[in-house]
Amino acid sequence: MRNLKLTIEYDGTNYCGWQSQKNGVAIQDVLEGVLARITGERIRVVGSGRTDAGVHAIGQVAHVHLSSPLPVKNILKGMNSLLPWDIAIKKIEEVDESFHARYDATSKVYLYRICNQSTRSPLEYRYSWMLSRPLKIEAMAEALGFVRGTHDFTSFSAAETGVKGRERTVKRATIDVKLSGVIELEMEANGFLRHMVRAIVGTLVEVGKGKLNPSCMEEILLARNRSLAGPTAPPQGLFLKEVKYGKGGGE
Amino acid sequence: MRNLKLTIEYDGTNYCGWQSQKNGVAIQDVLEGVLARITGERIRVVGSGRTDAGVHAIGQVAHVHLSSPLPVKNILKGMNSLLPWDIAIKKIEEVDESFHARYDATSKVYLYRICNQSTRSPLEYRYSWMLSRPLKIEAMAEALGFVRGTHDFTSFSAAETGVKGRERTVKRATIDVKLSGVIELEMEANGFLRHMVRAIVGTLVEVGKGKLNPSCMEEILLARNRSLAGPTAPPQGLFLKEVKYGKGGGE
Repeated sequence: MRNLKLTIEYDGTNYCGWQSQKNGVAIQDVLEGVLARITGERIRVVGSGRTDAGVHAIGQVAHVHLSSPLPVKNILKGMNSLLPWDIAIKKIEEVDESFHARYDATSKVYLYRICNQSTRSPLEYRYSWMLSRPLKIEAMAEALGFVRGTHDFTSFSAAETGVKGRERTVKRATIDVKLSGVIELEMEANGFLRHMVRAIVGTLVEVGKGKLNPSCMEEILLARNRSLAGPTAPPQGLFLKEVKYGKGGGE
Repeated sequence: MRNLKLTIEYDGTNYCGWQSQKNGVAIQDVLEGVLARITGERIRVVGSGRTDAGVHAIGQVAHVHLSSPLPVKNILKGMNSLLPWDIAIKKIEEVDESFHARYDATSKVYLYRICNQSTRSPLEYRYSWMLSRPLKIEAMAEALGFVRGTHDFTSFSAAETGVKGRERTVKRATIDVKLSGVIELEMEANGFLRHMVRAIVGTLVEVGKGKLNPSCMEEILLARNRSLAGPTAPPQGLFLKEVKYGKGGGE
């Protein structure tokens, strides 16, 4: 069997998320449907992890096992011509049979965009969290500092059964105000719990509004209690930007 | 009668353009409907000019005459809460009764975005022209140089009756490749003919592909013949960025 590594971009607005669900159309379903049409095989698309309903991806990664001898170039072209406008394959690479999109990921990078201006922006509506009250960026940056490093992120995750550990290492966490005025938050970690980025952003916004002190971030982390953190930021501001793999992991 | 100057942002995807048409919903219709609900008056919204179906605006300007004594702040808030997600009022200013959004405009700035990468980008789909063949930016920049200054732009405009002169002055014309790889073309002129920006961009792309020499731009201008220029670039890459007014013209 061949093993292919797919890099995928999508606008998540119209989907119930990455993973197949009972209700709604998932990105995974659409990809599997298109692969079946091209190869005649029933192929399972294994993603690096799920993204929730409405969340976008600049560089989601998945692997697929297939028998078809079709050249990679033809599969790429075929998939992009059959996929709807809001999903595209950016790259396909032939990888070692052992490569696994989820288990081999060494880190993920998420981007969160906040459009912070007095009136709402139609051109930013699909791709940001619209907030009219001016946020204190310096306070948010200070709060973000407490997130870096290895912590138990229970306070910043959805209640989920079956998750073995809640400790994750945030390698990088930055906040940047673009020329357009859009606030961009970027976080890289060895893994993220469900809703982790959105819960952190929701809490940072409370800090930015002056409702919480930056140092609260540390207390909330230590408390391991979701109810102390801020609300979960809405999905349309979130982008899975990149999934990284170590040596031999498909790159 | 009061006279108000409105600055408007919109995502034009779902509209038949700025101006009311027999078929389809125009931005103007939506604004007039919302103003009627707020003031109880039938108010005509007079724009700085039309934008075509699918074209966006970052800063369209319009004026409205109304009797309502409602404070500007309340009208702004009221309109933005009633308008759909893809239209928003950025600013309302009380202006002199003589101010006219169309006749007083001294220049307009248009932005055109081209997403030039080998595979299509879902996240750029709504807001750019997707072109996979690599474009020669330097040749396009050279061609763009011929557009600056005062010319008869017949070769770069839709056939239209009732237009008095086809001479316009392009004050500024720039091409810039952003970090994301998106090509941004910006043009400022004292006025634009119908489809002028899109015909110029369509021709520049022919130059970028190597199908036309940069100097052809001058020949095409002098020929005053639309059939010599390139195709009209698609609407979703075009943004009316700003409308400028001279002293006393509402600013």
